Amino acid sequence: MTRTGSDTVNFQLADGIAVLERTPGTFRALLSGLPASWIGGDEGPDTFTPFDNLAHVIHGERTDWIPRARIILAQGANRRFEPFDRFAHVREGRGKALAALLDEFARIRAENLAILRSWTLTDEELGLEGEHPALGPVTLRQLLAAWVVHDLGHIAQTSRVMSKQYREAVGPWRAYLPVLDR
Amino acid sequence: MTRTGSDTVNFQLADGIAVLERTPGTFRALLSGLPASWIGGDEGPDTFTPFDNLAHVIHGERTDWIPRARIILAQGANRRFEPFDRFAHVREGRGKALAALLDEFARIRAENLAILRSWTLTDEELGLEGEHPALGPVTLRQLLAAWVVHDLGHIAQTSRVMSKQYREAVGPWRAYLPVLDR
Repeated sequence: MTRTGSDTVNFQLADGIAVLERTPGTFRALLSGLPASWIGGDEGPDTFTPFDNLAHVIHGERTDWIPRARIILAQGANRRFEPFDRFAHVREGRGKALAALLDEFARIRAENLAILRSWTLTDEELGLEGEHPALGPVTLRQLLAAWVVHDLGHIAQTSRVMSKQYREAVGPWRAYLPVLDR
Repeated sequence: MTRTGSDTVNFQLADGIAVLERTPGTFRALLSGLPASWIGGDEGPDTFTPFDNLAHVIHGERTDWIPRARIILAQGANRRFEPFDRFAHVREGRGKALAALLDEFARIRAENLAILRSWTLTDEELGLEGEHPALGPVTLRQLLAAWVVHDLGHIAQTSRVMSKQYREAVGPWRAYLPVLDR
């Protein structure tokens, strides 16, 4: 493999979409059919279970990424985003089975990527700005990159939360398994 | 979902196997067909790319988990494991395409789980000990739990390494995306 060293790649829309379109399948491969102890385990009070992570990314599909991109593209007088509710996943997931959430995520992500592709965004449009309620001015390009990183962060978090269910079970191996203490 | 709070579940062989059998599919869903910039990006000098993570878990299948379990089950006079070469993935992956590694991992993991299942391990056998060259006495149960956590750690690491390729691209969102600074 060619290494890119520590250089960060510039955001390219096609490369970002390549990750976004794989995330539902990654959650499905990781979680589908697992015993409940894996799906419902957390890292302590007020932390996310794997189920919560999935419900949270679904909520983002509905209320965050595409709605914010629309605000930027509209370039209206008010370009300020609605604050994102990081705990709305509790409502999002209530009473649902994991299998239903996996299907829902696949469907809504596919819909959102169809919308994104339909825009055939230019470099100029990717540079348009909106206003994040806490972070200030942000570009559409930064929003789309953040969408990708948000997915990857929740895949990493889900896997980390699962690993911690065995923190004691590994005995002395804990010293060699840094994921258990992140 | 039922939450298990911060309790760690005890190691149950069937639950551990449930994760182990999903890992090749998770790597495939996450990585298959991605542009080279994702597969070959790292976190700086002497860190693993996604490709390296995959090659590393394959090397573990060959030389670590099942061979060490055999040493424990044999209960011979010398129960000391061979040290594990954490950088053998360089040889393991050399000249190979990602698609070939994904197939290889799926095949060798399926073989190893067939071996593990064929042993129909009892609770007593899971309590048998071997000697880790650095960590000292460890049980077969701890070895199998560490195998599971090792998988989950490398899924998390792969996802984290990918996210870091966009550390600059997200602009001010970096403050809200902790995976970028882990």
